[in-house]
Amino acid sequence: MRKRIRSYRHKVQYYETDQMQLVHHSNYIRWFEEARTDFMEQVGLPYQAMEEQGILCPVIEMSAKYMRMVKFGDTVRIRSKIEVYNGIKLILSYQVISTETKLIHCTGESQHCFLSNKGKPIFLKKEQPAVHEIFAAYARKKKEDKSNEN
Amino acid sequence: MRKRIRSYRHKVQYYETDQMQLVHHSNYIRWFEEARTDFMEQVGLPYQAMEEQGILCPVIEMSAKYMRMVKFGDTVRIRSKIEVYNGIKLILSYQVISTETKLIHCTGESQHCFLSNKGKPIFLKKEQPAVHEIFAAYARKKKEDKSNEN
Amino acid sequence: MRKRIRSYRHKVQYYETDQMQLVHHSNYIRWFEEARTDFMEQVGLPYQAMEEQGILCPVIEMSAKYMRMVKFGDTVRIRSKIEVYNGIKLILSYQVISTETKLIHCTGESQHCFLSNKGKPIFLKKEQPAVHEIFAAYARKKKEDKSNEN
Amino acid sequence: MRKRIRSYRHKVQYYETDQMQLVHHSNYIRWFEEARTDFMEQVGLPYQAMEEQGILCPVIEMSAKYMRMVKFGDTVRIRSKIEVYNGIKLILSYQVISTETKLIHCTGESQHCFLSNKGKPIFLKKEQPAVHEIFAAYARKKKEDKSNEN
Repeated sequence: MRKRIRSYRHKVQYYETDQMQLVHHSNYIRWFEEARTDFMEQVGLPYQAMEEQGILCPVIEMSAKYMRMVKFGDTVRIRSKIEVYNGIKLILSYQVISTETKLIHCTGESQHCFLSNKGKPIFLKKEQPAVHEIFAAYARKKKEDKSNEN
Repeated sequence: MRKRIRSYRHKVQYYETDQMQLVHHSNYIRWFEEARTDFMEQVGLPYQAMEEQGILCPVIEMSAKYMRMVKFGDTVRIRSKIEVYNGIKLILSYQVISTETKLIHCTGESQHCFLSNKGKPIFLKKEQPAVHEIFAAYARKKKEDKSNEN
Repeated sequence: MRKRIRSYRHKVQYYETDQMQLVHHSNYIRWFEEARTDFMEQVGLPYQAMEEQGILCPVIEMSAKYMRMVKFGDTVRIRSKIEVYNGIKLILSYQVISTETKLIHCTGESQHCFLSNKGKPIFLKKEQPAVHEIFAAYARKKKEDKSNEN
Repeated sequence: MRKRIRSYRHKVQYYETDQMQLVHHSNYIRWFEEARTDFMEQVGLPYQAMEEQGILCPVIEMSAKYMRMVKFGDTVRIRSKIEVYNGIKLILSYQVISTETKLIHCTGESQHCFLSNKGKPIFLKKEQPAVHEIFAAYARKKKEDKSNEN
């Protein structure tokens, strides 16, 4: 049921650097979003379709640890996983891996809730069972996490 | 009728620099928007109010000339003027002036049209005469342009 | 010795919104930087001067909690405080407060280390005692934290 | 000598939208840079190598025309061409084409000069003849421009 998820590839752009001659730390937060968008497409829940169905999935918490610098011209791969899903709350984790060094350069997490267009909380299990099933499928089997690698 | 417009002040942020250790050129485009937003408030047409009335004012053309570099920690002032307004089309010009050197570091222009929420062109003179009057007042008197300085 | 620190004022820009019609979550990370830059200036350690002295102060961890939305046209004030400073590590906290509602809309923290231009760790107490004294002055007196408000 | 240049592919990200629910106009300027970076790599002059050789290539003019909107989830291809190259000045043009509609959604141009690390103008023909030859090769044969398509 659960497919193998490919990691997301990002090539570092000039405009993502700052005068320390490294990627500005705020851009990793945007890369997490790029990777999450890609993850959602791969599992069959593209954001556009979610928003058209009236499900918003805003970020309510965010964290990042910057371990090794990333520079202009580098290419990174980002692995996204669902760490927690309970029908109300979704937590994804991210690993930013240099394609050159194969080392983890940054890790992060984002926590999300589910809201209707009018800003009311949605309980997915009841109101959007098909969406719920997918999140649950990719979250629940902790032991199979190795399948989520590239 | 027409008030004196104060120039807009922007302090350069670290995240606006790139690895050339200068402000990345795309950020000036954003500063023009900051200055335009401020200009619109000063003339009594804040964007929020415009959008609530159902008037969108998208950018359809944009240009910039980068004459002197701007660095982190610099403060610039931006002068906005209406160069053209004819009821359908709006052209603003921008001058980015260093508060330290008093020199013009960048100039630019943006051209806008007026659309309804549904994306249909709006002819302001007919459909929004009060809005039209304001744009016309700040655009038409070419000889008074000296009033538009700070 | 320790001055009262003014909170930092930020007016929300159009380009900071996303299609959820709220500020994109990555921009708060940039606002924290704006507030931190301002804080550093107020305490007498502007980033430019730090970098000219050969002290880099990169972000090594970052977190944010998004509690209430912020919209285009809103103005927020950001309060920055030094939560931890031990000569090697610096942790600042941020509160994003709506000027309208007076409520906290977002909180966050950033952790920093100190590096030389060549990327080697700097032990400020020994190598930059004047800089060290300032950080220590603004960090150590937990009971006086009320002075850090606006 | 002159290879066929592949157009550059960009997938629109959520953080690139604004509250008009379209891509914010400043992001196209960044896409031009992404496409230019890719073009430079394809012709054998990657920016990193240029900067390591001490050649900076800053943007000194920029323009864009926004013809059709681009939305989150769209994929565009960007075609870059050298319009002018005379040893001192470089002008590239860009076409942003929707992969779905095959229509041109945006066009633009960027003008560049060549500077040393110290900010002095470089006359490439004399000082960097190998770099000069490449720019000249991709610029001069106006009639072969059809090869520059994808």
